[in-house]
Amino acid sequence: AKWIEGAANIIKKTPSPELEAKIDAIVENIKKNQCSDGYFNIYYMVCEPENRFTNRDKHELYCAGHLMEGAIAYADATGKRDFLDCMEKYADYIYRVFVEEKSAAFATPGHEEIEIALVKMYLFTKKKKYLDMAAHFIDTRGAVDEQIKDDYNQSHKPVREQDSAQGHSVRAMYLYTGMALLAAQTGDRELISACKKLWEDTVLRKMYVTGGLGSTHIGEAFTVPFDLSNDQAYTETCAGIGLMFFSNAMLALETNSRYADAIERVLYNGVLSGLSLDGKSFFYENPLEINLNDRFESRYGYRRFPRSQRLECFGCSCCPPNINRLLSSLGNYVYGSEGDTLFVNQFISSTLSSGDISCVQTTNYPNNGCIKLQAKGISKVAVRIPDWCDSFKINKPYEMMNGYAVILNDGGEIAVDLDIKPKAIFADARIRHDANKICVTRGPIVYCAEGVDNPELLHSYVLPSKIEAVEEFNSEFGLITLSVACRRRLPFEGGLYSGKQPETESATLKLIPYNCFANRGRTDMMIWFCGSY
Amino acid sequence: AKWIEGAANIIKKTPSPELEAKIDAIVENIKKNQCSDGYFNIYYMVCEPENRFTNRDKHELYCAGHLMEGAIAYADATGKRDFLDCMEKYADYIYRVFVEEKSAAFATPGHEEIEIALVKMYLFTKKKKYLDMAAHFIDTRGAVDEQIKDDYNQSHKPVREQDSAQGHSVRAMYLYTGMALLAAQTGDRELISACKKLWEDTVLRKMYVTGGLGSTHIGEAFTVPFDLSNDQAYTETCAGIGLMFFSNAMLALETNSRYADAIERVLYNGVLSGLSLDGKSFFYENPLEINLNDRFESRYGYRRFPRSQRLECFGCSCCPPNINRLLSSLGNYVYGSEGDTLFVNQFISSTLSSGDISCVQTTNYPNNGCIKLQAKGISKVAVRIPDWCDSFKINKPYEMMNGYAVILNDGGEIAVDLDIKPKAIFADARIRHDANKICVTRGPIVYCAEGVDNPELLHSYVLPSKIEAVEEFNSEFGLITLSVACRRRLPFEGGLYSGKQPETESATLKLIPYNCFANRGRTDMMIWFCGSY
Repeated sequence: AKWIEGAANIIKKTPSPELEAKIDAIVENIKKNQCSDGYFNIYYMVCEPENRFTNRDKHELYCAGHLMEGAIAYADATGKRDFLDCMEKYADYIYRVFVEEKSAAFATPGHEEIEIALVKMYLFTKKKKYLDMAAHFIDTRGAVDEQIKDDYNQSHKPVREQDSAQGHSVRAMYLYTGMALLAAQTGDRELISACKKLWEDTVLRKMYVTGGLGSTHIGEAFTVPFDLSNDQAYTETCAGIGLMFFSNAMLALETNSRYADAIERVLYNGVLSGLSLDGKSFFYENPLEINLNDRFESRYGYRRFPRSQRLECFGCSCCPPNINRLLSSLGNYVYGSEGDTLFVNQFISSTLSSGDISCVQTTNYPNNGCIKLQAKGISKVAVRIPDWCDSFKINKPYEMMNGYAVILNDGGEIAVDLDIKPKAIFADARIRHDANKICVTRGPIVYCAEGVDNPELLHSYVLPSKIEAVEEFNSEFGLITLSVACRRRLPFEGGLYSGKQPETESATLKLIPYNCFANRGRTDMMIWFCGSY
Repeated sequence: AKWIEGAANIIKKTPSPELEAKIDAIVENIKKNQCSDGYFNIYYMVCEPENRFTNRDKHELYCAGHLMEGAIAYADATGKRDFLDCMEKYADYIYRVFVEEKSAAFATPGHEEIEIALVKMYLFTKKKKYLDMAAHFIDTRGAVDEQIKDDYNQSHKPVREQDSAQGHSVRAMYLYTGMALLAAQTGDRELISACKKLWEDTVLRKMYVTGGLGSTHIGEAFTVPFDLSNDQAYTETCAGIGLMFFSNAMLALETNSRYADAIERVLYNGVLSGLSLDGKSFFYENPLEINLNDRFESRYGYRRFPRSQRLECFGCSCCPPNINRLLSSLGNYVYGSEGDTLFVNQFISSTLSSGDISCVQTTNYPNNGCIKLQAKGISKVAVRIPDWCDSFKINKPYEMMNGYAVILNDGGEIAVDLDIKPKAIFADARIRHDANKICVTRGPIVYCAEGVDNPELLHSYVLPSKIEAVEEFNSEFGLITLSVACRRRLPFEGGLYSGKQPETESATLKLIPYNCFANRGRTDMMIWFCGSY
């Protein structure tokens, strides 16, 4: 389903008879095999036909949601409605079972997703029933006795009472996105307030510097505020994508650049890291630190570590097609509009054409900070000034509003110059794993060091709080790499502990964009370095 | 068996008819129940009489070794030989099965210990057979096909070829102790060389600042050099005691204060921490950091953390009686002699009386560094100058030799004044967990902070590399506590990451001796603090 959605997104931009033929063949198969009452799930139809909707953990509604999203994307791209018709029939069946008859063994999905899909079904078909269904699942969640009433799947209390991002990070992001999408349609203030609290808890207390979410592999979950271990980070690619979904839905609810900042942070770091440079292999987990030397195993067990290399194929095909559908719909994140204002949220060369409004954006961002915009059919252009940006220039007068520079549009070229340079980033003192440490960024890009470029122990480098770096364009990465002047601590001789400070020597630390790590073989990797401050 | 050994040590110093009666009753029971061929193991005799010596992992030889050590101690303390007779009979049976008939299902013990016991049996009974048995088990280890030929129990290669401390830390320490004790009797240079390499690998690459050994609970084992996580440290009390055994055996092989330094480090820190102040409860594991907030659990599992509080009773009664027999035999670590020289290895008020030699030591060490010695019957007194000591005074002329100040003894009082003051300790740059960090020590005592004394986040304190501290005697601990002037980083407002350095405020960090931690309820604890350097 996610592959169809991604392929449909591609077809929408660049027609492809080949891709269409593939999808049509799948749709024919779905039409032929869908149950007469509308139910469609290959596992249950083939293996356990008597057990439909009996096990909340089995992803039936999750799969249904993805099928609906795929069907919408395909109808939108091609105008062909067969698949969507099938999925409407399935949605109607789900409505009967869950809303009317309440005959399923559970009341809400174990893995949220269908909430998002149903709002999209409503927006595409205009049938209010689907919005009601989305509202039903959201209102019911945590409000009735569930089989397992725990926070792993955000069922521990009614969603409007939730104010802490908890449990499985992808499920959490999908639920919160569904809530925000629903609230945008209903204007439900209580729901909007819960969404804001959940977004703030996520981003202000539980987010890695890469935008990654989920501090433990145990349940692929959030843990507690400020618990952000680098080498034990789970930070699933899908959770990062989920943060983009959630933040984009929040941006539609509230004009505030912080949502677009979060999208930028996770897109350029914790999401792109999920994909290899050749586009063929994937990370589920995106660790922020790799220490190959510590990968201990014995006959009594082994230390659990994330993979150090991407895989082409996983048993659970969750993250790879999610990257596909995200990148093929990236245009959705670039612009926004409200009233007489066009919002430029992301800096990506692109052409917007929506009714009377058009905009051409030209940039080499993030390699440099020059962005050129030419907008028509709109009286104001609001350009996001990123949270990382300390200074910028615009060739027109502007006023700041909620993190955007708002410019009266006279149809002429708007030239924005964001000052992009390498700089040291510090972490909140409550994050114990980053205490006394420094991370280097350049614009939105978080940098890391790999063992392959730095033969000495990555932990022995000490970075100054003012970064001086030589920049070099790397054509393999398509991005800038850095050589940072620093010092390196030397080992003691004759003992592990001493009253004398370790001696240091001057050194150069080579840094690459974090999103490019693990493309050159198994090697150590580090983002947060000892800082001298 | 370990309890008997500890009780016998106590009886030797202070006769106790009550303790003796308890032991005599146990010995009567052993005599009544020992098999006629000499075998004695309660589990196998009662539960699996047909399976004697079939499972290498079942600690039969380990238990035999401890019984022998208990029997020697009791014979030494009381002159009663019944128990020792039983154990000689058992040792003779083991000799027949393992050395003569080779009829057991394995060739060497899965958990070493009997090697130590057999050398002690030889020393006490003068029967060469027992020394041969010790040599047999040591020579055979890793040199024949074992059921499981892995490094967990140091059977991966012949012991003379081993140069890396590996596997279960207690087993490793017991084996190496046995090797060193054997080598002291045989003068085997190859064995001495292996012992030195193993000791150096342990102390120079795998030892915590507390002297604790074993970086993972997985197999209670050593991992790789410089892998010394503080909150995941296993550092079993018995491994610390084992380091004392091993180092004391090495000290008998080679005059070098480094062995006594290691004994001091682990005794005052990683061993004493295993016991509560009231003497009633015990740690197996001695973590170097406790973060209660991070103890995450969910229906998908939990993060593995060590206990934060000592227990009165364990399912496996390993550490508690080991503390008992160690502390009751502490006198063995204080003095040594070689030729015309008396070595003062540890600073503990005590009276030595051995043949013509006597020595009275008076000190309040480690609360202060004044040590008074009055030795008779020996021409030189060699006083260890601890590795932590930067300056000292002695009221007599001396010459330094292998870390000892050697004084010609005129029978008058020798007054040594070691300059004890709080100071910052740094870790080798290869220990990533302590990078940029500072630990505070005062003499041999490693200090820690507990949450109960420091309500703010322990990770937010930043210590200067020159420690200024107010000292205060704490009568509950019997030791000095410290109040260290430092700074504390303040949380950010409005985001987890920033290009601006965290603001700081001046603060005072209260430190207590690490060996006293966890005596005042569940609370956070930390040894290595952010350092400003």
